[in-house]
Amino acid sequence: MVVSLRLSFLTSLFVSPATTSITYLSRRSIAIIRRRHHQCFLQQPLRTALFAAQSTAAETEDRVDSSKNRVQDQAITPRSQDFNAWYLDVIAHAELADYGPVRGTMVIRPYGYAIWEAIQEYLNVKFKETGHSNMYFPQFIPYSFIEKEASHVEGFSPELALVTFGGGKELEEKLVVRPTSETIVNHMFTQWIHSYRDLPLMVNQWANVTRWEMRTKPFVRTLEFLWQEGHTAHATPEEAEKEAIQMIEIYTKFAYEQAAIPVIAGRKSKVETFAGATRTYTIEAMMGDRKALQAGTSHNLGQNFSRAFGTQFTDESGQRQHVWQTSWAISTRFVGGIIMSHGDDAGLMLPPKVAPLQVIVVPIWKKDNERIGVLNAATSVKDVLQAAGIKVKLDDSDQRTPGWKFNFWEMKGVPLRIEIGPRDVSSGSVVISRRDVPGKQGKVFGVSMEPSILEVYVKDKLDEIQTSLLGKATSFRDSHIVDVSSYDELKSAISQGKWARGPWSASDEDELKVKEETGATIRCFPFEQPQGSKRCLMTGNLAAEVAIFAKSY
Amino acid sequence: MVVSLRLSFLTSLFVSPATTSITYLSRRSIAIIRRRHHQCFLQQPLRTALFAAQSTAAETEDRVDSSKNRVQDQAITPRSQDFNAWYLDVIAHAELADYGPVRGTMVIRPYGYAIWEAIQEYLNVKFKETGHSNMYFPQFIPYSFIEKEASHVEGFSPELALVTFGGGKELEEKLVVRPTSETIVNHMFTQWIHSYRDLPLMVNQWANVTRWEMRTKPFVRTLEFLWQEGHTAHATPEEAEKEAIQMIEIYTKFAYEQAAIPVIAGRKSKVETFAGATRTYTIEAMMGDRKALQAGTSHNLGQNFSRAFGTQFTDESGQRQHVWQTSWAISTRFVGGIIMSHGDDAGLMLPPKVAPLQVIVVPIWKKDNERIGVLNAATSVKDVLQAAGIKVKLDDSDQRTPGWKFNFWEMKGVPLRIEIGPRDVSSGSVVISRRDVPGKQGKVFGVSMEPSILEVYVKDKLDEIQTSLLGKATSFRDSHIVDVSSYDELKSAISQGKWARGPWSASDEDELKVKEETGATIRCFPFEQPQGSKRCLMTGNLAAEVAIFAKSY
Repeated sequence: MVVSLRLSFLTSLFVSPATTSITYLSRRSIAIIRRRHHQCFLQQPLRTALFAAQSTAAETEDRVDSSKNRVQDQAITPRSQDFNAWYLDVIAHAELADYGPVRGTMVIRPYGYAIWEAIQEYLNVKFKETGHSNMYFPQFIPYSFIEKEASHVEGFSPELALVTFGGGKELEEKLVVRPTSETIVNHMFTQWIHSYRDLPLMVNQWANVTRWEMRTKPFVRTLEFLWQEGHTAHATPEEAEKEAIQMIEIYTKFAYEQAAIPVIAGRKSKVETFAGATRTYTIEAMMGDRKALQAGTSHNLGQNFSRAFGTQFTDESGQRQHVWQTSWAISTRFVGGIIMSHGDDAGLMLPPKVAPLQVIVVPIWKKDNERIGVLNAATSVKDVLQAAGIKVKLDDSDQRTPGWKFNFWEMKGVPLRIEIGPRDVSSGSVVISRRDVPGKQGKVFGVSMEPSILEVYVKDKLDEIQTSLLGKATSFRDSHIVDVSSYDELKSAISQGKWARGPWSASDEDELKVKEETGATIRCFPFEQPQGSKRCLMTGNLAAEVAIFAKSY
Repeated sequence: MVVSLRLSFLTSLFVSPATTSITYLSRRSIAIIRRRHHQCFLQQPLRTALFAAQSTAAETEDRVDSSKNRVQDQAITPRSQDFNAWYLDVIAHAELADYGPVRGTMVIRPYGYAIWEAIQEYLNVKFKETGHSNMYFPQFIPYSFIEKEASHVEGFSPELALVTFGGGKELEEKLVVRPTSETIVNHMFTQWIHSYRDLPLMVNQWANVTRWEMRTKPFVRTLEFLWQEGHTAHATPEEAEKEAIQMIEIYTKFAYEQAAIPVIAGRKSKVETFAGATRTYTIEAMMGDRKALQAGTSHNLGQNFSRAFGTQFTDESGQRQHVWQTSWAISTRFVGGIIMSHGDDAGLMLPPKVAPLQVIVVPIWKKDNERIGVLNAATSVKDVLQAAGIKVKLDDSDQRTPGWKFNFWEMKGVPLRIEIGPRDVSSGSVVISRRDVPGKQGKVFGVSMEPSILEVYVKDKLDEIQTSLLGKATSFRDSHIVDVSSYDELKSAISQGKWARGPWSASDEDELKVKEETGATIRCFPFEQPQGSKRCLMTGNLAAEVAIFAKSY
């Protein structure tokens, strides 16, 4: 009988039940195949190899399944060993995403998409609370639009996908598949904005965007990705600035309170500012490998686009003025940030507030006469928690041992596990294990099954985990940021894989030199600045602010 | 001082304060400009004309505004006079959508998008309740995929948009911008489905799709539109059939209970079946002009795609089998269906359950000393209803008279209006007007402001309106369906603009002949069938079922 592991065939294929070292070698070959697969999927020989491999998956799975108690997570490359391989393994094993047939595209699978949905649900409410309306702009943009704003076309033209045929005919003007929507937004705004009474105009859209990236990585950088893009127009520069700041603050709050990621919010350097913006604000997150991830941005566009498109309004004194604008976005990249912030060698670790599943209930029985009692108790525990609004699942499958299930749901990052065996049924209690505290330390025995007690206990525990993940990530972040006062110190910090924070007032050229020589870029000038006068680490001149330098995704 | 109407400039431009007949002529010219605009936007002379027109909008608006009590809805072509012009007017005036810069594309504005959000919220819950998970497939599909299923490529190849350049280079294989996702879904399913344990696999995505349509109309048929597409794979044909039926039933329930549209659910004829499906189920709605709108479809795909893509599983006895599949979709077209089902000469009329705004509160005062009392009362009424979960807005602007506001919010289709004047404040009561019952008949005086009473009253009224709209639409539908037993009767019914229902067992050729000669197509063989033996209206042979013929969008 064939037993499916429900794992990506690519990975399950190479899982050998033999020894750990062989498994590890196999995992590396997968990573290599994957990378090549990713970059040149359409080459025929590789496709054939992949499909041929697939047809033997069934047998291999049989072998894997024969050792029913195999520890699932051995299949995942240890994070400490190879962070990138670990990341790709987690994505495959936890069924977060898969590669699409076109190079660089990604299929977001239900478990990964549910994390994105948690992000959407939170932000969508916040956007509406702050006066933004959702709407939808077409994704096809006339090529001429992109050319209107000089730095915008410079920034985006190398990454464009172009539609040149439609309905069987070659098009007169080629169309850009939106890489971002500032141009088409302004085209429409010129038709909707007439007087100061039409301002502020504050809209948002949830949409897909396309950027022809050469080096892609699931969630972090894909040819097509999902995001929200907010676009606003205001009567004054002060209002636009306030809006840009408000939105980066909403993102910051989301990162801390929902995703348990202690991002550092700040302003981008001129070199790193969005193509077409006057100022870009960013939240920068430290991943488990200490690389920085730009996790969300909010742009003060000034009048750059309104001048290029003629987006004007008549002010209270009857004068025609160009509007002041902002745009801001968070994308499916954030899902990658969550994976890389909290995961460990056992796999994914999800903050309760963004977890598709918060609690997994695993029933345990040995004898057949125990089965019904245990399953009934487990079902009622699940029902109680579900009714309390907790995202809970009962894994009652007969196919797997409890040990296998423990490992599987740990790998999937479920924050809490409830175990129920025959003895628990008799005593009316359950065993509760935390995903974030391994072994016995994270296990509590004898928690009452009584609904009101259990519900409160589980909710408290989930809050505790949420807080604990943020605390852990904050310590990790802080222990890897080094204050530097010279370029040598900066180079040393970066070469140790850390973030360097130091006073900076040097030129764009100096900034580019740092990038070339160390691989690090200015991630931001943080909003939180140390007091007192400072001297630029590069030039020794006075510096108003410290900047954070780091290697980044 | 310039006063903006916040209306689409194209329409507000031509609103003449003079006489109704001139207004009407102007509306026709707009419609013509629009249609041409729509088809050849990028021709320079027209664009110039449009932008030139725009620059004078401010003056025109001033003139309009000078007659402050002008009845807003005179600007809308009467529905009875020209249904299409009425439809376009409603979309522009109620700010539901606007034309995008690329021919046939549409910008969905916040008020229109909020209707789509109501559709999403309801269906998304139902999909999850019935075991479907959301996910996301890339929109770029290798051209070779489309060619794999013979009837699919035949159906879709004339409508494809093709990406031929990416990242500055010509692509080796051109990419299709998804017109629908069966092909890429199957490509991925082959990697996820191994054994019967992986089935059923039931997923859904909310996404944009592109079909290069030649004749477009906002919401009803646009080059790019938004939809959800469900895709499922099953182990048996019975399960797939059950799923296809379940989903058309969910759509039917949504149409009746949320959108107040009494659709007729049934099976498509072979001629009208989806390109690649074995059976297509549909819900057909009768619009205000008695044309049919296909408002949602659910396809039993049989093994057509699984055979083309090799989507196989190992069944319980160890045999390899092709999966049985379904797909089903509802799109932003449904928003067009809501507009065309319920609207009247005054504009939009929205069923409370899909209305972005359910209640508009209009304060009325003449003397300055009345103002504060009235506004306070109006605000507290708004707060009470908002706290009760009702979608309510207080229109407290000083720019417009109450009369103007009445007409404006009627035009926007808000189901209930609450009026509060100084006398109401003294008596602690409000006046409530129904959008669906014009004049005094729809007006109730002296409804108590007492929170608990008002809340119950408003909720009851909204329910009553919801029921009433469905009832009205059902009577309208039923009075325009004619039972026919011969081709002559069918022709006569169709020529009167009605739907013809009659027994049908004739050939595909006969069906195409009817289309050619009358313009009507078989909309469906309804699930609800009359008892007794029947003879085909065309051939006189025995017919198992009646079919419904109608002209359609």
